[in-house]
Amino acid sequence: MKTDIQIAQEAVMNKISDIAAKLDLTEDDIELYGKYKCKISLETMEKLKEKKDGKLILVTAINPTPAGEGKSTVTVGLGQALCKLNKNAVIALREPSLGPVFGIKGGAAGGGYAQVVPMEDINLHFTGDFHAITSANNLLCAAIDNHIHQGNSLNIDARRIVFKRVMDMNDRALRQIVVGLGGKINGFPREDGFMITVASEIMAILCLAENLQDLRERFGNIIVAYNMDGEPVFCRDLNVQGAMTLLMKDAIKPNMVQTLENTPALVHGGPFANIAHGCNSIIATKMALKLGDYVVTEAGFGADLGAEKFLDIKCRFGNLKPDCVVIVATIRALKHHGGVKKDMLNTPDVKAVAKGMENLHKQIENINKFGLPAVVAINKFITDSDEEIKYVKEYCESIGAKVALSEVWEKGGQGGIELANKVIETLDNCESNFKPIYDVDMSIKDKMNKIAREIYGADDVVFSSGAEKQIAELEKFGLDKKPLCVAKTQYSLSDNPALLGRPSGFTIEVKEVRISNGAGFIVVLTGNIMTMPGLPKVPAAERMDIMKDGTIVGLF
Amino acid sequence: MKTDIQIAQEAVMNKISDIAAKLDLTEDDIELYGKYKCKISLETMEKLKEKKDGKLILVTAINPTPAGEGKSTVTVGLGQALCKLNKNAVIALREPSLGPVFGIKGGAAGGGYAQVVPMEDINLHFTGDFHAITSANNLLCAAIDNHIHQGNSLNIDARRIVFKRVMDMNDRALRQIVVGLGGKINGFPREDGFMITVASEIMAILCLAENLQDLRERFGNIIVAYNMDGEPVFCRDLNVQGAMTLLMKDAIKPNMVQTLENTPALVHGGPFANIAHGCNSIIATKMALKLGDYVVTEAGFGADLGAEKFLDIKCRFGNLKPDCVVIVATIRALKHHGGVKKDMLNTPDVKAVAKGMENLHKQIENINKFGLPAVVAINKFITDSDEEIKYVKEYCESIGAKVALSEVWEKGGQGGIELANKVIETLDNCESNFKPIYDVDMSIKDKMNKIAREIYGADDVVFSSGAEKQIAELEKFGLDKKPLCVAKTQYSLSDNPALLGRPSGFTIEVKEVRISNGAGFIVVLTGNIMTMPGLPKVPAAERMDIMKDGTIVGLF
Repeated sequence: MKTDIQIAQEAVMNKISDIAAKLDLTEDDIELYGKYKCKISLETMEKLKEKKDGKLILVTAINPTPAGEGKSTVTVGLGQALCKLNKNAVIALREPSLGPVFGIKGGAAGGGYAQVVPMEDINLHFTGDFHAITSANNLLCAAIDNHIHQGNSLNIDARRIVFKRVMDMNDRALRQIVVGLGGKINGFPREDGFMITVASEIMAILCLAENLQDLRERFGNIIVAYNMDGEPVFCRDLNVQGAMTLLMKDAIKPNMVQTLENTPALVHGGPFANIAHGCNSIIATKMALKLGDYVVTEAGFGADLGAEKFLDIKCRFGNLKPDCVVIVATIRALKHHGGVKKDMLNTPDVKAVAKGMENLHKQIENINKFGLPAVVAINKFITDSDEEIKYVKEYCESIGAKVALSEVWEKGGQGGIELANKVIETLDNCESNFKPIYDVDMSIKDKMNKIAREIYGADDVVFSSGAEKQIAELEKFGLDKKPLCVAKTQYSLSDNPALLGRPSGFTIEVKEVRISNGAGFIVVLTGNIMTMPGLPKVPAAERMDIMKDGTIVGLF
Repeated sequence: MKTDIQIAQEAVMNKISDIAAKLDLTEDDIELYGKYKCKISLETMEKLKEKKDGKLILVTAINPTPAGEGKSTVTVGLGQALCKLNKNAVIALREPSLGPVFGIKGGAAGGGYAQVVPMEDINLHFTGDFHAITSANNLLCAAIDNHIHQGNSLNIDARRIVFKRVMDMNDRALRQIVVGLGGKINGFPREDGFMITVASEIMAILCLAENLQDLRERFGNIIVAYNMDGEPVFCRDLNVQGAMTLLMKDAIKPNMVQTLENTPALVHGGPFANIAHGCNSIIATKMALKLGDYVVTEAGFGADLGAEKFLDIKCRFGNLKPDCVVIVATIRALKHHGGVKKDMLNTPDVKAVAKGMENLHKQIENINKFGLPAVVAINKFITDSDEEIKYVKEYCESIGAKVALSEVWEKGGQGGIELANKVIETLDNCESNFKPIYDVDMSIKDKMNKIAREIYGADDVVFSSGAEKQIAELEKFGLDKKPLCVAKTQYSLSDNPALLGRPSGFTIEVKEVRISNGAGFIVVLTGNIMTMPGLPKVPAAERMDIMKDGTIVGLF
C-alpha cells in the first residue's frame, strides 16, 4: 500500500495559474509562489463583491478517538466528488503547523486519495504565513520587554504579562523559562514561556479579520499585560500594531493549492482548536464563497467544540450563513464510544456500534439546534463489517438524518459520490435557519451555561474561585460581552475524556477565564491546556530526509 | 529630498520573468514569488556547468564610521553603471536581517538611486530564507533538549551545550535565559540564550555550501555540545540533519530581484560579519558568474575583516577567483580617520583627509597582498569639497591605485560610469594572481599571527588562558586545520575601536576561540561580541505602518 506522501508525489498537478483561470481569476488576481501555490489578492474580493455567494458546507465529526476520524480527508474528498459531479466546488482548509510535523504527527493535508498538494510544501514553510505570525507575535513581545527596560512609563506589572513569545516548534524546554538574566544590559528578569505559533492570538486574529485595517485594529486591541493598578495594557499602547500589520501584509492573503484531482483548495490560517476557534480564515472562506458554487470547509475537533466555535464565533464575526453540516463518523469510533477497547476496535460488534451511536445522535441534535441540516458521512475503513454500516445507516435514517458512505481515502472523489449527492439533495431540499446558540450580550456565566447545557448536555457549570475573579475583572472593564471559546477535551461531550458516548448528569468545571481581546473572544478553560507540545522519544524528524535526486522521504 | 522607500516605491520594475529571460533563463529555471521575486533552480547550475565564468568584482571599504560607507549602494550602483555601458552585469548581495529593521536600522538594500527592489519585500520576509534557517536551527535545539529529557544516551553535558536557539528579532530579554523550568514534564533546567538568526551557524553553512548534499553533510558536522567526557557531540549524533536539510530545500536556491534600473541582482544569505564570514552565498555568487559577464558582490565591514574573510574563507571553500577589488571610501570617513570629531565631518579639511588616507593606503596594500588589483571608489557626499576629492585622487594615483568618483546614490548607474570604466580598464589590464593569505594547515596560532601581522599591521598576538585551552582542545580533536574567522571591531585595523587611521605597535588580544565545525571555520574572538541586539528607546517599528490604500510607511 502506498503512503500518503507517495500518493502525493505521484499527483499530476495542474499549474496553479490554470486552476485560477478556471475560477475566472486573472494573472493580476494571483501571486505565484512557485508553479503550484499562489496567494489571491485582497483586491479580488472587492472585484467580486456583487457576486452571489456559493453554498457553505461545514464538515465536522463526532467526538474523535485519539487517531482522528478523517475530517480533513472527507472534506477534501467531498470537494473532489462535487467536481466529479460537474459542480464548481472550492475547498477551504486550515494550514498545518510546522512543529508537530517533526514530532509524532507527520504531515496533515488530508489522506490517501483525498489530499491537497504539493503536500511537502504545505507541510513545511508553505507560503510563510506562520513565520509571519511568529514574527509579528515576537515583535510585540520584544516591544513589551523593551518598554520595561527603557523606563516602563506604562507602569507594566512584570508579573502580569499575559502575551507570550511563540515558536513553530515542539519544544518543551521553552514552556517555562526565565528571561532577562545577565544584568542591566539584558533588561529585567521575569518568568515567561513560549507557546507554539498556532496558539498565538495573532493567528486567531488573522483568521477572524475582514481585511488589513481590521487586522490592524484587532492587533491594537490585544491585551498584553496589566499595569500596577490592575488595568489592562493594550498592544496599541506600545504603538507597534502598524509594524505588526506590515509583517502580515502577505500572510493575510489566502493561499490556493489543489487536490490530487485538481479541485481548487484555499488553505489559510490554522488556529489551535482549544484556546482558539480552530478553523481557517474568514477571508479564505469568503473568497471561496465568491469563487465556488459549493464551498466545503472544516472545523477542528468534534462538533461540540469545532462546529460550536465555527458557528458561534467564526460565522458570527464573519456574518457567514452555513447551509449544511456533514458529521463524520467511523465505525471504529462508534465502537470506541460503545465501550470497546483499542485492540478490539477492528472486530465487528454491532451492539457496541449501537451503544456508540448515542454520541453521533447528540451531535446531530446539536447541529439541528443551530437551525442547520446534518448529513452523516461514514468514513469507511477496511475492517468495517456490512452489518455495522447497515446499522448506522438505518439508525440515522430512523432519526431523519441523511447518511452516506465515504470511501474517499481509498478512491478519491469517486468514493465520495454518494456523500456528494446526499449533500446536494440536502442543499436543494432543506432550508438553513442558522442562528448562533447564544446572544453575546448575555453574561459570561449565562453564555457558558447555555453552551454546556444545550451542546454538551451538562447538568450544571461550576466556576473555580480564580475563574470567578477573572470574570469579575472582565465585567469591571466591560470586556465580557463577547463570544466564548471553550477549551475542553475533544474526546468527550463532557470535560472528562473518559466519559464516552452521550454522558449525562455531569457538571462542567471552569478552571480559568482569559480574554483574547484582539481576537474578540473570551477563552474559558475547563482544564490545563498544553500550548507547547514536546517531541517524542524518537521524533518523526529522525526519519525525514531529502535524497540526492531531491526525493523527500519520511514526511509520513 | 525623497527617502529611500519613496524612491523604491516609484521604481518601474520589470517582471522578474522578463529579467530572467534576458539572462537566458527559462520558465523551468525559476520559481516565482509574486511578480518581482524568484528563486533560481539548482538544476540550472548543472545546465550551465560548461559555461565560462564572468569576472568577479568584490566591493569592500576602509574601516567604516558608525554611519557606514555605502558599500551596498556602490555595489548596486556599479552594477547599474556596467549595464549602462552595455555590459551583462549581475549583482550578488546579502539578504537583510528582519530584526534590526524594527530597531534603529530601517531597511538595507542599497540607497538613493542605487537600490534593489521590491525594497519592502526584501526587508521583510523576502522569500522566507531566514525563517527556514530559524526553523532548522531551532529544530536542532529542540532535539538536543529532547535527547536529554528522553534519557541522554549520548551523555551530553548540559553545562556545555554550545548550539543556541535563534530568532530574527532584536530581543535583549532572550540573551540570557533559563529553560526547562516547571518540573519533570518540561525537561531539565539549564542556562541558555537566543542569538539573532543571522548569527546562526546554519546561516554560515547555507552561505558556504555547494549544494543540498553538502549542506546536509555540514549540518551533520555541527558540534552542538560536549559530553561528560569532554568529547564533541555532533548534530549527526541526534540524527536530524536530514530534517534540517528538508527545511532548507527552498532556502538553498538563490533569489533574484532587480535594481531600480532593472539590473539583475541575486540576493541570498546574510551571515554576521563578526562571528561569521559576512558575505552572500557561494551558490549565488557561482550562479551569478554563470549568468553575468561581470559580477559585482560585497563583503561586510571594512576590508581588514570583510575582504579578508571573503578571500580566505569564501573564495577558498568555493574555489572562487576574484578579478578585482573596489575599496569604497568617503571623504567624511577619511577625515574621521584623520582625527576629526563627528560634528565637524562636514567641514572641508584637506589635512585631516591626508592623515586619514593612511587607512585607505593600508587597505590597498592588503588587497595587493592577496594578489589582487584595487580600485578606489570615492562615494561622494554633498559636503565633500573639490580640494578634498582632488587630494584623494592624486594620492591614490601616486601609489599606483586606480580611483574614481561614485555618485550612484544621487544619480544611479549614470553616477557610476567613471567607476565602471576604471573597473573595466583594470579587468582588461591587470591580472589577478589571487591566493589566500595563509595556509589552512598552519596551526591556529600561526594563522592568527599571519592575519594580525600582515593584514591588521599588529606587532603581536596574545592569547588568553581560556583561548589557549580552547586551542589545545581543538588540536586534540584534530579540528584545527581550518580557516579562521576573526571577530574584531570593524572600526579599526586593530582590536581597539579608538585606534583610527593606520595604527602600529599594537597587540591583538584573543579572548576566546570557538569552532563552527559545520561551517568549517574557527571563530577567533578579540572581544565580547553581541549576537542578539536590543531595541532602542523608540524602535523604528513605532514609525512603521501600512495605510488603507496599501502604502507602506516608515521602513526608512
